[in-house]
Amino acid sequence: MAQKIAILGASGYTGAELIRLISTHPEMEVAALAADRKAGMTMAEVFPHLRHLDLPDLVRIEEIDFGQIDLCFCALPHVASQKVIPSLPEGVRIVDLSADFRLRDPAEYEKFYGTPHLAVEMQKSAVYGLTEFYRGEIAKARLVAGTGCNAATGLFSLLPLVKGGLIDTGDIILDMKCAVSGAGRSAKEHLLHSELSEGYFPYAVGGKHRHLGEFDQELSLAAGHPVAIQFTPTLMPANRGILSASYVKGDAAAIHAAMAAAYAEEPFIEVLPMGQVPSTRHVRGSNFVHIGVVAERGAGRATVFAALDNLTKGSSGQALQNANLMLGLPETMGLMMAPVFP
Amino acid sequence: MAQKIAILGASGYTGAELIRLISTHPEMEVAALAADRKAGMTMAEVFPHLRHLDLPDLVRIEEIDFGQIDLCFCALPHVASQKVIPSLPEGVRIVDLSADFRLRDPAEYEKFYGTPHLAVEMQKSAVYGLTEFYRGEIAKARLVAGTGCNAATGLFSLLPLVKGGLIDTGDIILDMKCAVSGAGRSAKEHLLHSELSEGYFPYAVGGKHRHLGEFDQELSLAAGHPVAIQFTPTLMPANRGILSASYVKGDAAAIHAAMAAAYAEEPFIEVLPMGQVPSTRHVRGSNFVHIGVVAERGAGRATVFAALDNLTKGSSGQALQNANLMLGLPETMGLMMAPVFP
Amino acid sequence: MAQKIAILGASGYTGAELIRLISTHPEMEVAALAADRKAGMTMAEVFPHLRHLDLPDLVRIEEIDFGQIDLCFCALPHVASQKVIPSLPEGVRIVDLSADFRLRDPAEYEKFYGTPHLAVEMQKSAVYGLTEFYRGEIAKARLVAGTGCNAATGLFSLLPLVKGGLIDTGDIILDMKCAVSGAGRSAKEHLLHSELSEGYFPYAVGGKHRHLGEFDQELSLAAGHPVAIQFTPTLMPANRGILSASYVKGDAAAIHAAMAAAYAEEPFIEVLPMGQVPSTRHVRGSNFVHIGVVAERGAGRATVFAALDNLTKGSSGQALQNANLMLGLPETMGLMMAPVFP
Amino acid sequence: MAQKIAILGASGYTGAELIRLISTHPEMEVAALAADRKAGMTMAEVFPHLRHLDLPDLVRIEEIDFGQIDLCFCALPHVASQKVIPSLPEGVRIVDLSADFRLRDPAEYEKFYGTPHLAVEMQKSAVYGLTEFYRGEIAKARLVAGTGCNAATGLFSLLPLVKGGLIDTGDIILDMKCAVSGAGRSAKEHLLHSELSEGYFPYAVGGKHRHLGEFDQELSLAAGHPVAIQFTPTLMPANRGILSASYVKGDAAAIHAAMAAAYAEEPFIEVLPMGQVPSTRHVRGSNFVHIGVVAERGAGRATVFAALDNLTKGSSGQALQNANLMLGLPETMGLMMAPVFP
Repeated sequence: MAQKIAILGASGYTGAELIRLISTHPEMEVAALAADRKAGMTMAEVFPHLRHLDLPDLVRIEEIDFGQIDLCFCALPHVASQKVIPSLPEGVRIVDLSADFRLRDPAEYEKFYGTPHLAVEMQKSAVYGLTEFYRGEIAKARLVAGTGCNAATGLFSLLPLVKGGLIDTGDIILDMKCAVSGAGRSAKEHLLHSELSEGYFPYAVGGKHRHLGEFDQELSLAAGHPVAIQFTPTLMPANRGILSASYVKGDAAAIHAAMAAAYAEEPFIEVLPMGQVPSTRHVRGSNFVHIGVVAERGAGRATVFAALDNLTKGSSGQALQNANLMLGLPETMGLMMAPVFP
Repeated sequence: MAQKIAILGASGYTGAELIRLISTHPEMEVAALAADRKAGMTMAEVFPHLRHLDLPDLVRIEEIDFGQIDLCFCALPHVASQKVIPSLPEGVRIVDLSADFRLRDPAEYEKFYGTPHLAVEMQKSAVYGLTEFYRGEIAKARLVAGTGCNAATGLFSLLPLVKGGLIDTGDIILDMKCAVSGAGRSAKEHLLHSELSEGYFPYAVGGKHRHLGEFDQELSLAAGHPVAIQFTPTLMPANRGILSASYVKGDAAAIHAAMAAAYAEEPFIEVLPMGQVPSTRHVRGSNFVHIGVVAERGAGRATVFAALDNLTKGSSGQALQNANLMLGLPETMGLMMAPVFP
Repeated sequence: MAQKIAILGASGYTGAELIRLISTHPEMEVAALAADRKAGMTMAEVFPHLRHLDLPDLVRIEEIDFGQIDLCFCALPHVASQKVIPSLPEGVRIVDLSADFRLRDPAEYEKFYGTPHLAVEMQKSAVYGLTEFYRGEIAKARLVAGTGCNAATGLFSLLPLVKGGLIDTGDIILDMKCAVSGAGRSAKEHLLHSELSEGYFPYAVGGKHRHLGEFDQELSLAAGHPVAIQFTPTLMPANRGILSASYVKGDAAAIHAAMAAAYAEEPFIEVLPMGQVPSTRHVRGSNFVHIGVVAERGAGRATVFAALDNLTKGSSGQALQNANLMLGLPETMGLMMAPVFP
Repeated sequence: MAQKIAILGASGYTGAELIRLISTHPEMEVAALAADRKAGMTMAEVFPHLRHLDLPDLVRIEEIDFGQIDLCFCALPHVASQKVIPSLPEGVRIVDLSADFRLRDPAEYEKFYGTPHLAVEMQKSAVYGLTEFYRGEIAKARLVAGTGCNAATGLFSLLPLVKGGLIDTGDIILDMKCAVSGAGRSAKEHLLHSELSEGYFPYAVGGKHRHLGEFDQELSLAAGHPVAIQFTPTLMPANRGILSASYVKGDAAAIHAAMAAAYAEEPFIEVLPMGQVPSTRHVRGSNFVHIGVVAERGAGRATVFAALDNLTKGSSGQALQNANLMLGLPETMGLMMAPVFP
């Protein structure tokens, strides 16, 4: 019998992406959809591209009977997530797509999000949702914290290298090209088509980007000592896709070998032949990650490129992958669709 | 046991789209891929977005053992298609995506394509592939001729109205906004990003567009007398999506009722509530068609809008839908994926 | 000595476009800039692309000393314009870019804008700003009402034909592809890059678009009897450019000859050779209009295509052209820059 | 009397951009246009956006009477340029937009362009066209070699720092986002709209990009010792604009002060306030460069961002700026147009 799924924050892009993916998932059924501001509306009104589906109307969270829910995806903004999740019944497994449960240290949370953490106890039980590196804990977890989309892209590029001691952890520079859907659906002047299309600019520069908290946490853990990378995101005139360039100091051949070995058995991670580079167009709309390694002309320098779709593998696809594990379903179920190109 | 599929012309966009769709089809297996110019290459080289799939390398058509093939998708250019298809063994069912077998009258073919038809006999056995209107014949056919993507969009908007005698067949104007992937993958100056992006212009104006042959054929058949519409396509700075506006003379309410009735049971065609309009963004990457009907301020005038993805429902998705019927599989198998938005 | 210019509503796109054009105008100087919500900010903060210019900071309208102003461009929203303009001192010439003074009949204004006209007396003295057709009155006017960008595009295509009695005025259909900057800079969900890019959809359908008031007024005047066209705009995934297709009943050769004659001496209007079609990419960022005429396959049917940049010739460029006339300057001064392609 | 200008290679994007700029230049007149493949065509046929201009038709180079030419812009591909330029009469000043005369050392040329230099003698007299740093020599030169667009962007970011000894020249990483018009107008599959739009990928990675020759030459000269930077370009789904991020080791405050000082008097270079970042949208279609400096969280680390329009300041605008100097005209003549936004 299909697992009953609830989605909180269903009127945003990650909510819509979850529904897109679940709509062809053989073992899941969307049982409840919540979106406070748009409660009472049908999904066809909020997202006409989903009008062919037989979906429940949007309700307010408190209207949901969680007694019948097996797993709840929480796609609310940060802070909102912290307030809702502690109130959910014990029997409901939770995949949170917000930033609220990603950082183990409440002080780090406050540092990057500017507000004290409201569910410190619950934080302790949360598992960081980078599936390929926390598969075991995720399968046993009640609460999984989905990673930041940029963090996932960078961590796929760096974790095997840091764990393997293959690069200088004191000199890592990440340059990331990020599609605009990562900024969500809220109407802001700088996200208008007229402001963005055909142009590009860096944002959250100077170490201010919140995903740095995740980088610091995961890379320091992997290295066994504090690691603080340098990270610059650039907003792209595109809707889906993150392309990451990790500038590292290490041997390119050894780095490529380590990446190939680390991901050899991974269903969603493709390590390209040495010297080849990925494109966001080649992972779009899919759960796949393409990784390329290039030797720079400077001795002992290499660049690791990674591309994924921020709404799929970077967010809702990763969330579904984790949900599959939590529910004892095959990890890839409902996630093997090929990228949409062109 | 999965049906064995061959795709000829696999290095083009419709070929890639067929592989994308078949890659999650439970009853089909890609057994052979041909692309003369790129024979010898792997699909990962030609289409990196498909690199995760275990696909046969590209070969030349004559290298394929058609004895083991159940159905062959022919995604070659017109004329090339006519030369290859007659040579395929009797046992192989064929879905042709080119224009070669769409027109019943060889004279019409020569008029629009500027070259005599080379397989007049075979033409007689071909069924026009507009699934929703030729379902029965398609299920029994050996050769199905996929429709033009623009023709499909317009015919979905007009056929129920012409059959129902609801509009003035002497005064039909179609204005169609067409994405550039419909022009294929060949490198031409006017298809460069620098030439196309952020701009738009009409093309094949003055009744020169080849799909007019299909409109004339199907609408005249439906009306029982010759019908010649007026058609203007405009090239869009976008990759997927056709938006059609059909300006007709008839009663909007009756038109909407007829559309709703005609497509009530259709799994892929969504008729929007009266007065609502479709967007190409809401069908992108899917096999769905969204249709809207609007009453104009002039008495007895209405506009029918239709949107579909030219590579999916307009071409490869339609082809797979027809192949399902020809192979006795459920018509919607492998085609229920939701549109990709944003 | 340079003419002193004030711009009200300088924080919007038409305001920025006016400044772009005036920045290289030899006989004008920006003396005052107003934008109530952003009063106190510098233009470099509001529009970084203008940071190289030495411009006055944004102030509130009441802070402007109009005694030193020769001409005021009013780029406020409709209704706001009506409230401000009557209060400007007699000596100040005014070019209004809003819809407030375009319609001679206050009842028509109320019908399309849903609110009674607040400056009926002043309306009587306003001249409709379609330069090529009202040049004489504009040169003498104190208040010129800039046209709607869509109205301008359509009127350039139709006025010579209606005046010449060359087409059936009872059967005119306009299909217009409109760039998103025409919707202004306000942050609305449906104008986000994620919602718009790579897609297209009709809007203000069924005779609801406000520019119909201008079409009705000007075409009826030209025809000498009531003319009500059918008009459907489609929103484009592009920032600048309107492409209009006017579907008319008349002789294509006669229509082309009439257009060529009507615009033979016009500095900004280019009538293409018979059968050729315009592209928005070829007028972008300029004050030029490209017009093409095509004969349809149906006898006595033709299509007139027109392309212009909605922010330049459709709005701010037209406004500057009119201001030149009002100030006794050469009409083309500061407006001869070539389109930006690619 | 206006200076007579010839443009060789007028059918490409840099040729068209030169004509766009010269069309409003008060002291220059286009006297001859050459484009071998398109000889005999009018510019209106090759570039419809220039159809309003009264321009000479395209001819073959040998048809030009150089006796009446004051200055010749050579916008031919590299190698072609070397063959033509030596044959031009002594009296003609030349601005070459190709790569042929940028590198002082023929061995470096052969290394990066894979073919021996054919005009070694002439190379000696060529001046590198980075106006802001070679102003004096350019004014006296007969042959000026326009810089690579990426090289210009990076050198504006780095030269003042290297000259000032403010950064570690052994550890400079450039990540550059490059618009596609830089790849020219030739029809190649990977430049199609369908292949590029909405996606991004690195190219010429691993120290293979040809502009590295210019970086090495100019930065080593400035440093007084060999400097070899690390450079990764990424192709953007946009037509105009280069955004460069230079990751350097040095004191951000000192770097910002040095940049502000170096460019204080420059008419086209805007150094933003400390911590602010540029966007390509804010320089588009103009000759301006916007530069921003950001302090990274790692001590002694900073990032310098620069944005310019590759076709204007990166190529044709720079060429015109140099031509003005060579002809004794004001350096900024015909180049002060504001960026086109949105």
